Amino acid sequence: MDNRPIGIFDSGIGGLTVLKELMEQFPNEKLIYFGDTARIPYGTKSKEAVIKYSFQCIRFLLSKNVKTIIIACNTASAVALEPALKEFDLPILGVVKSGSKAAVKETQNDKIGVIGTTGTINSYAYQREIRTISPSAEVIGQACPLFVQIVEDGWEDTEVAKLTAEKYLIDMKEHDVDTLVLGCTHYPILRYTLKKVLGEEVKLINPAYETAKESLELLTERKLLTESSDIHEVEFYVSDDAEKFRRIGGNMLNRNIKSVKKIEIEGL
Amino acid sequence: MDNRPIGIFDSGIGGLTVLKELMEQFPNEKLIYFGDTARIPYGTKSKEAVIKYSFQCIRFLLSKNVKTIIIACNTASAVALEPALKEFDLPILGVVKSGSKAAVKETQNDKIGVIGTTGTINSYAYQREIRTISPSAEVIGQACPLFVQIVEDGWEDTEVAKLTAEKYLIDMKEHDVDTLVLGCTHYPILRYTLKKVLGEEVKLINPAYETAKESLELLTERKLLTESSDIHEVEFYVSDDAEKFRRIGGNMLNRNIKSVKKIEIEGL
Repeated sequence: MDNRPIGIFDSGIGGLTVLKELMEQFPNEKLIYFGDTARIPYGTKSKEAVIKYSFQCIRFLLSKNVKTIIIACNTASAVALEPALKEFDLPILGVVKSGSKAAVKETQNDKIGVIGTTGTINSYAYQREIRTISPSAEVIGQACPLFVQIVEDGWEDTEVAKLTAEKYLIDMKEHDVDTLVLGCTHYPILRYTLKKVLGEEVKLINPAYETAKESLELLTERKLLTESSDIHEVEFYVSDDAEKFRRIGGNMLNRNIKSVKKIEIEGL
Repeated sequence: MDNRPIGIFDSGIGGLTVLKELMEQFPNEKLIYFGDTARIPYGTKSKEAVIKYSFQCIRFLLSKNVKTIIIACNTASAVALEPALKEFDLPILGVVKSGSKAAVKETQNDKIGVIGTTGTINSYAYQREIRTISPSAEVIGQACPLFVQIVEDGWEDTEVAKLTAEKYLIDMKEHDVDTLVLGCTHYPILRYTLKKVLGEEVKLINPAYETAKESLELLTERKLLTESSDIHEVEFYVSDDAEKFRRIGGNMLNRNIKSVKKIEIEGL
């Protein structure tokens, strides 16, 4: 039994979808969330930059004495998980691995689509992970950079969203994928539009949910769960604009965030 | 006469539109361009972060012994020009002031539209600047965050671009603006789509062009132009992924960029 907190980080606010799942599955764990809002997005940055930023996030969470770390950002998880496991001596989980496993389990025809930011798709991390688990799988990756802004503008049910999805998903339709990994934290909000374009029967995989589920298994297996039965407030940290995060993050989590602290991440 | 270089900075690659104008108007000046690609975009960051980043960019250019600095980024120019003029002892120009002056000169009906990133529009910098020059002007600001990605995807002539522009520009049409400031370096690429939506007769103001024109006036007036008649290679620096900048930047400038150096900007 281990009463230390669990650390989660993301390039910004998107990882709150993972946090939300963790809050439901771990009601008695202390959770610490860090959003690197000063340097969002990671998806357009180089591999070197994303690894450097991720290591700084991990060092910050280690200074809070966490027992495990969950990389909620798809780009960081795609690029920095392997290097981080070599550099740091604690269990670290990333959304890419968990999402890939679930997709392989779901597909019937072995044709899996993956959508994400340019960084995530070009890193080939989902594609490689899926092929490692299931070498016979055909994986079609497609970067959908406009989707994040469409969601942030609240345009998920507009004609613009539908036309954009149709343009992005042409290849997916032609290849007849039956399972689609939503490889970016914003995309689950587009699920109705995606189903409209790809067909109702396509299975959508939300890596946030799958990661929380896998974390529970890992912590149970390693006997790292807390013995406490208290309910703790989540601690929130960001690298820019705490008030904006408090406001938008509260909306996303559907609960009032009491306080968010801004910290200095450069130089860590 | 002053043979020191002119410094230009932007959050990334967009400021190359300003550089291009400067190269045409200053064929014999040494030009140094810095793109803060590690922290792009500035438009979604807080005022404090944008000022901090801008000061770091300026300190880097000062280390290269520049005689003047041009802030090519609309967000940085909107938020950081005034603080920078207080902090640093050299002439600094920003695209917001130059663009605003030109808009006031062009309008016939005193109704001016401004489009830009969320950061630029919410900073109210163009709106304030235009009203300072012409208190009777009616200024309608509209953030168009999707436009940057649409241009970066090469979608400027698609139905998605047109529908998006129609949604963003409803207010502009209703207010019958006759002059529109393109307050983001990417937007000039959308000029045909914007004219299709707003009407052929609307005047589009490109602050990049106006800023280069004003720089020439300022340097002439203060006798800061070079006496050299040599043609110099522009020096390029970035904070992330030099090769990507070299490739995409070369396309934008329509010329081969020989070398781009990556520097460490954090901590400056």
